[in-house]
Amino acid sequence: MKVLRTALFRVRAACSFTGQSVSLQGQRKLFWSCGALSVGVAGVSIICYHSNSHRVFAYSDSKLDTSKWMAEPITNKKLLEERSTEMKYKMEAMIMRIQSEVCRKLEEVDGDQKFLVDRWTRTEGGGGITCVMKDGLVFEKAGVNISVVHGNLPPPAVAQMRARGKSLEGKTLPFFATGVSCVIHPRNPYVPAIHFNYRYFEVMDENGTVHWWFGGGTDLTPIYLNEKDAVHFHKTLKEACDKHDQKYYPKFKKWCDDYFYLPHRGETRGIGGIFFDDLDAEPQSAMFEFVQSCADAVLPSYIPIVQKHKNDGYSHPERKWQLLRRGRYVEFNLIYDRGTKFGLQTPGARYESILMSLPNTANWEYRNEPAPGSAEEEIVKVLKNPREWVREK
Amino acid sequence: MKVLRTALFRVRAACSFTGQSVSLQGQRKLFWSCGALSVGVAGVSIICYHSNSHRVFAYSDSKLDTSKWMAEPITNKKLLEERSTEMKYKMEAMIMRIQSEVCRKLEEVDGDQKFLVDRWTRTEGGGGITCVMKDGLVFEKAGVNISVVHGNLPPPAVAQMRARGKSLEGKTLPFFATGVSCVIHPRNPYVPAIHFNYRYFEVMDENGTVHWWFGGGTDLTPIYLNEKDAVHFHKTLKEACDKHDQKYYPKFKKWCDDYFYLPHRGETRGIGGIFFDDLDAEPQSAMFEFVQSCADAVLPSYIPIVQKHKNDGYSHPERKWQLLRRGRYVEFNLIYDRGTKFGLQTPGARYESILMSLPNTANWEYRNEPAPGSAEEEIVKVLKNPREWVREK
Repeated sequence: MKVLRTALFRVRAACSFTGQSVSLQGQRKLFWSCGALSVGVAGVSIICYHSNSHRVFAYSDSKLDTSKWMAEPITNKKLLEERSTEMKYKMEAMIMRIQSEVCRKLEEVDGDQKFLVDRWTRTEGGGGITCVMKDGLVFEKAGVNISVVHGNLPPPAVAQMRARGKSLEGKTLPFFATGVSCVIHPRNPYVPAIHFNYRYFEVMDENGTVHWWFGGGTDLTPIYLNEKDAVHFHKTLKEACDKHDQKYYPKFKKWCDDYFYLPHRGETRGIGGIFFDDLDAEPQSAMFEFVQSCADAVLPSYIPIVQKHKNDGYSHPERKWQLLRRGRYVEFNLIYDRGTKFGLQTPGARYESILMSLPNTANWEYRNEPAPGSAEEEIVKVLKNPREWVREK
Repeated sequence: MKVLRTALFRVRAACSFTGQSVSLQGQRKLFWSCGALSVGVAGVSIICYHSNSHRVFAYSDSKLDTSKWMAEPITNKKLLEERSTEMKYKMEAMIMRIQSEVCRKLEEVDGDQKFLVDRWTRTEGGGGITCVMKDGLVFEKAGVNISVVHGNLPPPAVAQMRARGKSLEGKTLPFFATGVSCVIHPRNPYVPAIHFNYRYFEVMDENGTVHWWFGGGTDLTPIYLNEKDAVHFHKTLKEACDKHDQKYYPKFKKWCDDYFYLPHRGETRGIGGIFFDDLDAEPQSAMFEFVQSCADAVLPSYIPIVQKHKNDGYSHPERKWQLLRRGRYVEFNLIYDRGTKFGLQTPGARYESILMSLPNTANWEYRNEPAPGSAEEEIVKVLKNPREWVREK
């Protein structure tokens, strides 16, 4: 804790969350690689920092296989290896791996397009790696972001956290966070869209107490209902949860239905999945293991569905319905999503990464009402009354 | 004032803004035609009511030419004529005329499609007339709404008004409002989109004092800059303003630039126009005349531009840029527009009318950056630094 405290106060001296440019003059002895990417998709902006002084703590001999990562990590590789037992580095290594595995798999399944890899930093401090594929054979748009960001939480953000039940003393508090975030909009209307986001957050109050928590989730947005696919998806997530706590899946499934909800339409965005925030139970390593299991469950939950339907036949009415459903997706992300709102309110936020979650094309139509008994009506019924897809044993 | 007070308290007894269904049992002696349509476009939701008891005040002999109106008004025609000196009826008759003139003109210019006319009421009380044209030769989507709505303002809405400077005593206050709202998304990228909204609002505090005000504006969203068109548009609005007060145009032009602004992109939505709210100076009739002049200036400010460019040649790059600009339009309306936000938060709100402002198609692209010196860059420069289009004499 003491180590963290020292590092955090150094950061505090040099960086600011308020979007002001950071002067590094007189800070030459520190190696900085810091940034701020608001992951405007699932829940909150994710922010992380590190400070590599000459003192090295928590040495580790672990060797990271970085050969397949999409780009150089935001934190120096050597540091990630040496301090791999510290949660922030452990998490960064994990999300780098997840980003790489998801991107490689999507490229393989698509067979046509590759990801554009955009590694960026900002003058305010912070960085991320934004990977985008567009106009693929299978994936019309896919984005997989990681970010490693840090700074000072401004008073309104601290107040918001307090309102969520965090007992934080102080007004402007140093924090860091890291996470991976992904949205995939496939071309074929019979292949559902998917979104996932896993993140780790630390904030230190003025007493020097470090508060940490994990958040995240994975959820599916089919254009048409396929019950077998829905069961497969939820079952895969449930298995990942059950390995850690049998209470997780039912709790986080409900949380997901509640969160991805458009009150003005009385509909959920999709058929849900899991969603959680503020996971802070000790031991921390158990929480990490759980989050890692969830992140590792993404590809097995989704790719079989993509493979099954990527060549399904469809024509104009299905495409039209898909574009209207994407309009709802845009509505949710721009009106209700906490991450997007929080992200866009952050001065100096990288809006390109936040808004990457939006589909390339979305439609709206006045009073589009699915015909009774149609496949369009079938999915809307499920969105209006979320179902249980996996029975408790 | 006393008349209004009596009527308002009757309304208070029977209707609620909270979206609850209204029981009319025991109210048979009153003729009701009430509703709630949130005009989710320019500024605020507009709401109005009337109560026609057997007592008739403020008789008038004026004959309304209702023959071209798009539908039966929300308020009984006879009442509109008999009480035409009362502002709420005067305003309703004016917006019915404006709706009709705009719709007829757009149909004439389009030459292909007609407006679908959707007259609606809701169980919570209230009504409106939503006119929508889609897939026209000239207009890809055009919506012209009127609404005449009333109810009780819930405490958060009252608090919000108080924060805007209204000295309102009481917690839940009866109110009514009426307005016209319009968004036009043309097909040709060289024809700008336009939006306008003119509205009248009354709220009575618990001391029986009636507070009233007008709001509204007209603004233009070109995809490509045409300086002559911009000057023509602003000049027409300025002339409408100058007839009433020379200070109006500069003040409301700036207000428009400030309001239609996307902070995350550092861009205005379009090249502005005029925007105002809380216009409550006596005499009330002078305020009405000003608002009417603005509403009457819409067609002369816009139609010449449409006629000039509706047959301009264009191809894929211009269309692509148009769809990306529409993405920004969606961002503004869903993230920042007060009317949309307020409207969608209203229980029982008619979201179809609120979201009618959205284009039928919008696109997003990761890091689309106009080429230096391009026509796309030219308009973005203006959006980042709003210009004065009409010099003061």
